[in-house]
Amino acid sequence: MTNDSTFTYHPIGIINSPYSRRIDAPHQSTVVQGTETGDLAVATLKLYNWIDKEVIQDLEGFERVWLIFAFHLSEGWRSKVKPPRGGPKRGVLSTRSPHRPNSIGLSAVQLIEIEGMTLHLRGVDLLDGTPVLDIKPYIPYADAFPDSRAGWIDEMDAASGRCSAPGPRKPR
Amino acid sequence: MTNDSTFTYHPIGIINSPYSRRIDAPHQSTVVQGTETGDLAVATLKLYNWIDKEVIQDLEGFERVWLIFAFHLSEGWRSKVKPPRGGPKRGVLSTRSPHRPNSIGLSAVQLIEIEGMTLHLRGVDLLDGTPVLDIKPYIPYADAFPDSRAGWIDEMDAASGRCSAPGPRKPR
Repeated sequence: MTNDSTFTYHPIGIINSPYSRRIDAPHQSTVVQGTETGDLAVATLKLYNWIDKEVIQDLEGFERVWLIFAFHLSEGWRSKVKPPRGGPKRGVLSTRSPHRPNSIGLSAVQLIEIEGMTLHLRGVDLLDGTPVLDIKPYIPYADAFPDSRAGWIDEMDAASGRCSAPGPRKPR
Repeated sequence: MTNDSTFTYHPIGIINSPYSRRIDAPHQSTVVQGTETGDLAVATLKLYNWIDKEVIQDLEGFERVWLIFAFHLSEGWRSKVKPPRGGPKRGVLSTRSPHRPNSIGLSAVQLIEIEGMTLHLRGVDLLDGTPVLDIKPYIPYADAFPDSRAGWIDEMDAASGRCSAPGPRKPR
């Protein structure tokens, strides 16, 4: 079975963050809390003006937003990848690796403040210059399933006692 | 500020669901629980064979997966939209409306079983024929924030006593 359709998207904004190289970025946004200072990294998302300010009206009341973004530095995809937390290779769609068939990223970040077309964010795991394709409000009833079983990740955590992936010690 | 880059994605699979028209689809996947029978709608996601079976290895241990998909029937975007739960128009990026600048959808669905290249899913709010761009494992430490403030949605719920958006009574 195959399909020839394609979907093309234009970035709605760009991330300015302390992480300039892939090796510097934490592996999930929540891991950013594990920095040496204990501070959460702060980043901004500047929206382009092909969309207008009205699109983000009413957004400031949300504590978190989803960012859907392009892993713009990812070089092609692989069927299996070696996760940063160790263990055997896993099917790429069972991980959050950038090396996916469509290299689209997803991250729930804290929204601190909106200033004109700039969103100030905290707990961001995105590289500087990351193109953002969509912003969605984080809605607990649709998005929060704290007890959801997490397969090989639960197994690794049970074995090692950790409950989050390793990240960099300090944003550079 | 503007930017000319674009990102093009190829569907990795297609949804087969009981919802064939936009008006039939519930507004969030969790709302599907509000059907007359109380049963959760079941859907399948058939993966195309330009990706191989290895990409979903290790996925079956996850209770939920994220689907990132194209709102393929959405006809253009609007700055503000009228949410199905009522109230004034809201900035489109403060809602989960399909009428977004990049009409990309996001839904956390239950993974029941994997059979070859077919995923059996429950709690799906996607239309029949929806092109899926990415699957990601649902990882509670990165994704679940049950107490996250949800701005105008919290306000509407506080006023009306409801805690989820209205959906159709029964999948057709």
